[in-house]
Amino acid sequence: MTDRIWTAALVVIGDEILSGRTQDKNVAQLASWLNVQGIRLAEVRVVADRQEAIVEAVDALRARNDYCFTTGGIGPTHDDITVDAIAAALGVEVVVHPQARAILERHYETRGGLTEARLRMARVPAGADLIENRLSGAPGIRIGNLFILAGVPHITAGMLDALTGTLEGGLPVVSRTIGCWVAESEVADLLRDAERAQEGVSIGSYPFFRDGKVGANFVVRSTDPDKADACVAAVTKALEGQGREVVAGGV
Amino acid sequence: MTDRIWTAALVVIGDEILSGRTQDKNVAQLASWLNVQGIRLAEVRVVADRQEAIVEAVDALRARNDYCFTTGGIGPTHDDITVDAIAAALGVEVVVHPQARAILERHYETRGGLTEARLRMARVPAGADLIENRLSGAPGIRIGNLFILAGVPHITAGMLDALTGTLEGGLPVVSRTIGCWVAESEVADLLRDAERAQEGVSIGSYPFFRDGKVGANFVVRSTDPDKADACVAAVTKALEGQGREVVAGGV
Repeated sequence: MTDRIWTAALVVIGDEILSGRTQDKNVAQLASWLNVQGIRLAEVRVVADRQEAIVEAVDALRARNDYCFTTGGIGPTHDDITVDAIAAALGVEVVVHPQARAILERHYETRGGLTEARLRMARVPAGADLIENRLSGAPGIRIGNLFILAGVPHITAGMLDALTGTLEGGLPVVSRTIGCWVAESEVADLLRDAERAQEGVSIGSYPFFRDGKVGANFVVRSTDPDKADACVAAVTKALEGQGREVVAGGV
Repeated sequence: MTDRIWTAALVVIGDEILSGRTQDKNVAQLASWLNVQGIRLAEVRVVADRQEAIVEAVDALRARNDYCFTTGGIGPTHDDITVDAIAAALGVEVVVHPQARAILERHYETRGGLTEARLRMARVPAGADLIENRLSGAPGIRIGNLFILAGVPHITAGMLDALTGTLEGGLPVVSRTIGCWVAESEVADLLRDAERAQEGVSIGSYPFFRDGKVGANFVVRSTDPDKADACVAAVTKALEGQGREVVAGGV
């Protein structure tokens, strides 16, 4: 564990997200998983199923983050071009990974056999390792600081499970939420002052409108649990000093 | 209406998305709205509430797309820095927009008055126009090809409503979905051949696992409804030729 902040980026590869057909779930899922590993999700790009778009995003993000993840585009069909795009970005060949081939042979033994289309899912950028996929056979891929994951959220989740505890990270970020039935504009000064008063914390303000009333949740985040708690106590005291009721855990 | 493809990009500004706390809904919402305007969502970036990150994303995306939208970071609190970041990106000053001020004065007349924090929501990059917000007063902002929208999805939706029909676009993309209880790996060749046989269409393959069985939906997209229909007919015929049952509209 060190004090430095470890960051990751995500490239979501998928026309289905950009067309509005599919609601992405992998951003939130990866973000939550990374928090536990002590790694911060610093940026996300959603790109189309086009090689140039994938290469540009992966090149930019892997260079300036400790880790870069991709989701989507690793299936057996013609629109699955992630492996080719990443091999191009890295300047390496695409090869059939013998272990991936063996996994797929076993997986499809009772499901019609390993066809040419299915064999596509054993292709990896040369030099890559595999990430286990207990759910549907076709593995994820790790090469350097790149992690190539499936796009279907529950398969992505399984691959993240397989990676749990294998990535170096720093201190996990803790977050504390308090809520209040108040327009955030009425407490903006109070929040700004509380954030300034406590180094190493950030306060996010998230307004909502519910049951005909406005309210807001305030999320205090820090790698230091004591600082987060102190900041929550200060904000709570200040809100209560204005005669407002504060709901621990958020509204 | 022209044949050229009009594109838009979206910059989602929000630590709450990157932390995993909040599930983004604006990507899918904007994508669907753009489709109807004849504009394609070409790329999305999710960035933190940091000025450099916002400036970099907005600069890159507004230059290579017809339109660039942002969501988030236009409220009254200290973490709302979108207007300042975009003014910096454009190299213009931040000014109080007189009409926005008047709107907010009216909106807060019966809600405790226009405080300094609330007045922040009347600040715009110099030269900007307003986008109406019937729901919560504080307007969105349009400057050049940039559209600065709220982050709370139902408020974003209201701002998009106000923009409906005001943006030049091309032919809307139509999509047709058919579904089949088949592993996509068994029909990969068929799909690739069908896409190649019909210029101007793309076929996406979206596998799922449901009720203990694998299946896939195939989405045919084109700006030409006749071509999309012809491609759907060809894929359906090919699947049925293999003895498979095809579900129009998707499974």
